[in-house]
Amino acid sequence: MLTLYHHPFSPASRFIRLVLAEYGAKVELVAERPWERRRGFLMLNAAGTVPVLQEYEGPPICGAYAIMEYLDETRGYAVGDRRLMPDHPEARAETRRLVDWALNKLDGEVVGPFVRERIYKQEMPASMGGGSPDSASLRAARANIGHHLRYFGYLAAARNWLAGEKLTFADLAVAAELSCADYLGEVTWATEENMKAWYARVKSRPSFRPLLSEKMLGMPPAPSYADLDF
Amino acid sequence: MLTLYHHPFSPASRFIRLVLAEYGAKVELVAERPWERRRGFLMLNAAGTVPVLQEYEGPPICGAYAIMEYLDETRGYAVGDRRLMPDHPEARAETRRLVDWALNKLDGEVVGPFVRERIYKQEMPASMGGGSPDSASLRAARANIGHHLRYFGYLAAARNWLAGEKLTFADLAVAAELSCADYLGEVTWATEENMKAWYARVKSRPSFRPLLSEKMLGMPPAPSYADLDF
Repeated sequence: MLTLYHHPFSPASRFIRLVLAEYGAKVELVAERPWERRRGFLMLNAAGTVPVLQEYEGPPICGAYAIMEYLDETRGYAVGDRRLMPDHPEARAETRRLVDWALNKLDGEVVGPFVRERIYKQEMPASMGGGSPDSASLRAARANIGHHLRYFGYLAAARNWLAGEKLTFADLAVAAELSCADYLGEVTWATEENMKAWYARVKSRPSFRPLLSEKMLGMPPAPSYADLDF
Repeated sequence: MLTLYHHPFSPASRFIRLVLAEYGAKVELVAERPWERRRGFLMLNAAGTVPVLQEYEGPPICGAYAIMEYLDETRGYAVGDRRLMPDHPEARAETRRLVDWALNKLDGEVVGPFVRERIYKQEMPASMGGGSPDSASLRAARANIGHHLRYFGYLAAARNWLAGEKLTFADLAVAAELSCADYLGEVTWATEENMKAWYARVKSRPSFRPLLSEKMLGMPPAPSYADLDF
């Protein structure tokens, strides 16, 4: 029995939900608002961040990086050809480079600011930092997104999937990040054909379906968000 | 033959130098100034960040996370009891949680700002963002460091090493980060006895010696930086 503490619009949480679905692992989701710094949650993860995974009453596995490796170590062999981590150390390094890029660089420069300014701050009370989005942060994120899309588009054109011939953790991490920006209509697909074709393939996987039906109260998704032929 | 592209005061590069030394791997160091965005370096790592490891003419391994896992996968078994990654998936997850904390949270909230404002900006020409440190960034980093030291100090008091009974990647990642702040005299050891005792143990390992002799032109280290009885 797995429990995942997550936020529906935390890109790293979405990444782990995709991984769990691809590995066919059943999970109970517990929605957490990390900014509330709930005592019970801080006892699980002193960093106060989502995602956190717990297996039965076992120790909490904190953060997307540790969770991804844990799921691969405990379940990767069982899924055979659908394993999301390649076998060869060099191919593994390439997968991890791109996961790191997605969860830290793409998140730090683009998706994190979008989610914080346009989603989290709408949910937070003013006393916890809620309020109107900071327009300088949004401007910077909008200026940065093109560089990331072009680089991933270059990989998508050169390879079958982002890290190589097979679907890996890298595709799910990048897609999870972009899905949050896409909900907000912030992804400039029109100028990035290769990325768009790659995203359409990831988006039509059964593992993606639960994310596409997720809705934030008072902020409907961009029109093409759940459309598989966007 | 291993080549490491690094910066002497990049905490993530220092972490990998410690790992290489602990694993007894010989390496040729190539100093890189990431802000110059040298074309040959961007061809190795499109993210433009250090560290990058290359084995012979093999593909570049980019980023401390991918490098650490790569070194463990290719050399971990050979070092036997000195392996820096535990065997059990739960203990591995705990190690990775703390490495992630060091390289992302501690770096993002504390050490990254110190290094950028007080070291990198002194080396950069004004046209690339060099100049005087931003005092608001330094103030924030100084306000944050205590929280991190207290949390790691709590772990150091409860366990033999940060992630458990044995030295792991977690100790080296946290120590590498703190060593950069310590060079600048920014670590408030006096109030953190447990952390200080832990750091003294890591600092006296032979793998640490090369870091302690590293000096930045025009900015000598804080007096206790290389002192093993600080």
